Amino acid sequence: MPVAFPAIAIPKRLLMGPGPSEVDPRVYRAMTQPVVGYLDGVFLQAMDEIHAMLRAVFSTQNVATFPLSGTGSAGMEASLINFIEPGDEVAVVVGGVFAARMCEMVGRCGGKLLRIDHRPGTTADPDQVRQAVRGKNLKVLAVVHSETSTGVLQPLEPLKEIAQEAGALLVVDTVSSLAGVPVQVDGWGVDVCYSGSQKCLACPPGLAPITVGERAREVLRGRQKPVQSWYLDLSMIEKYWGQERRYHHTPPVSMLYALHEALRIVLEEGLEAVWARHQQCHRAFVQGVEALGLRMFVADPAARACTVNTVHVPDGVDDARVRGHLTERFGIEIATGIGDLRGKIWRVGLMGRTATPELVVLLLNALESALTANGFACPRGAGVAAAEKMFATQPQ
Amino acid sequence: MPVAFPAIAIPKRLLMGPGPSEVDPRVYRAMTQPVVGYLDGVFLQAMDEIHAMLRAVFSTQNVATFPLSGTGSAGMEASLINFIEPGDEVAVVVGGVFAARMCEMVGRCGGKLLRIDHRPGTTADPDQVRQAVRGKNLKVLAVVHSETSTGVLQPLEPLKEIAQEAGALLVVDTVSSLAGVPVQVDGWGVDVCYSGSQKCLACPPGLAPITVGERAREVLRGRQKPVQSWYLDLSMIEKYWGQERRYHHTPPVSMLYALHEALRIVLEEGLEAVWARHQQCHRAFVQGVEALGLRMFVADPAARACTVNTVHVPDGVDDARVRGHLTERFGIEIATGIGDLRGKIWRVGLMGRTATPELVVLLLNALESALTANGFACPRGAGVAAAEKMFATQPQ
Repeated sequence: MPVAFPAIAIPKRLLMGPGPSEVDPRVYRAMTQPVVGYLDGVFLQAMDEIHAMLRAVFSTQNVATFPLSGTGSAGMEASLINFIEPGDEVAVVVGGVFAARMCEMVGRCGGKLLRIDHRPGTTADPDQVRQAVRGKNLKVLAVVHSETSTGVLQPLEPLKEIAQEAGALLVVDTVSSLAGVPVQVDGWGVDVCYSGSQKCLACPPGLAPITVGERAREVLRGRQKPVQSWYLDLSMIEKYWGQERRYHHTPPVSMLYALHEALRIVLEEGLEAVWARHQQCHRAFVQGVEALGLRMFVADPAARACTVNTVHVPDGVDDARVRGHLTERFGIEIATGIGDLRGKIWRVGLMGRTATPELVVLLLNALESALTANGFACPRGAGVAAAEKMFATQPQ
Repeated sequence: MPVAFPAIAIPKRLLMGPGPSEVDPRVYRAMTQPVVGYLDGVFLQAMDEIHAMLRAVFSTQNVATFPLSGTGSAGMEASLINFIEPGDEVAVVVGGVFAARMCEMVGRCGGKLLRIDHRPGTTADPDQVRQAVRGKNLKVLAVVHSETSTGVLQPLEPLKEIAQEAGALLVVDTVSSLAGVPVQVDGWGVDVCYSGSQKCLACPPGLAPITVGERAREVLRGRQKPVQSWYLDLSMIEKYWGQERRYHHTPPVSMLYALHEALRIVLEEGLEAVWARHQQCHRAFVQGVEALGLRMFVADPAARACTVNTVHVPDGVDDARVRGHLTERFGIEIATGIGDLRGKIWRVGLMGRTATPELVVLLLNALESALTANGFACPRGAGVAAAEKMFATQPQ
């Protein structure tokens, strides 16, 4: 046999990019629980618990709340194709790469796309959105809550009104916001909401939690044609997660163990405490990078996601060298921009386990070292000092 | 917070159903390796190794060989929707539930279905298939190699000729055959072949290895319209697994670590030894159950998959009680039939780690106990004796 590879030996990294993010050792341990059959009573109970915990994290009473057997992009695809039939008008609010991906998916399932662009790094203006959808027979209004490519957090309440006025379903991507900043599915009138396991939930990538409200389920029941995807057909999947327990596909058992433990960890801390911690770490990080002489990419502080923090790469500084320094000297991973923003911004994830004062300080210190080594003069120790001051004045 | 569940504590089962099957402790351990970013050099190397090992296991030189980020059904869907455009004629050879699932997927993507049914428990007659496709402008001929719902192994070489005569792509499901019985993708002229991680590969469910030959890739390149699924678009996914390394979606990192280790385990033993072991355990099991007075569901010994072994539930015996006895007294899981075969057959997986003489003997002993307790008179010890005799005369 020509292939004789050694076992994988992954060096320890500190994942402070936009995801995947750090995984709790308890979650790794949960994955070593033995795999069992997909109709085993102990497994069905774990599914029910995942269901209950996801409802708490999404702040919803939706019956149809479960993780899909794919990554966040599978969640995005399921959240669109199940509700769109050929010719349906679908508006997508676009300020970054992930919203643009939604547009591509709308086209592939035959939706009539109304793309409402706004400048990356800013939030969408609700008046502009209202104007754009006026007079349309809109089936879906889709929006990204926390745009992982730009670090913008889009307020959802104004969009809820617009969707309701238009009689459209509000579909929301919370891949990099869920369990990091408040997400109120019921309170905000979100009809379909999905996320990914590998961001603030601090779980490995591979699952896409989704929740579907009653209005959206009615749309499912009223479809003219079956959903084009069998694998992501929500009506079938909910019959496995619901009391019918009708077999659909073999679920990724070990990943579900992981999610079960990750949800327990979030709920043990409490959602409000989790949100406050992310908020505090974000603020301290912003104070720190500004004290180092850097500028945040999202100019308006109110428009920043606490979870994905985006920073301009200063003029004359080589993005890749700085990131290389962080990885080689400190084992820290942060990311560059994607699409047009490649090489222009850094994306720093303070999500789940990395949203702690210790790691914010560690990163600022490492960043100062990397910047200094790459010809950018930072005031020595200023970043750490600014962050520590913030942590001292706003203790959790 | 209303949800305070204890950690999952899964009792140890011995998974001898049709999958998921037993996972090697080495595979569980691999999953605890730290998650890293999807463009990290160490991860890219692991991807390359998975690619090389999958080529060995599929017996192919196909460049486009990688695991999809979903379960086996995602592999089935990808293997159909990428090659079918609306109106394309697609023949599916149907002798069980999983082939019937293919038919449903063909319909959902607008293919014109030619369903070629044969009796469950038998193989398809190549002459009948040839007759059925005659004069058709066939794009795809799809077939299940090992039908997990019936335990039939379909010989593929005759179908290869039929596909070639028809100018169609041969698409093959090897979910419950790969790494259990010989699969020769290149040797048998299979154009698209997919499997699942949770059967003979002895890995948790969640990944669908797939391989796509050159003829099939040409079909991809010549498509008129984009594939309806963005998530399962093979042309995009192969650009991430290939040397372009173009980001598509965040892969399920921990599951890929698991697959890497599972593939190492298979190749350390060697494919031919693996196949021989499955074959030997299957034969001994058949001798054993027949000695107990049971009958195999697949009458023709040559038509039986070694991996999924199907046995008639004897008249007057309660299927569920026997399985309950196996679980409660021995911690062993076997499965009943699905669809029309529910309650009528047992499906016994001798796949990966359960294809061992020790476990065959253990199961036969447990089965005798369960049958006896449920009013079926077995000759005492006859099953175990017959199997042991077989193992003694055909030592590995």
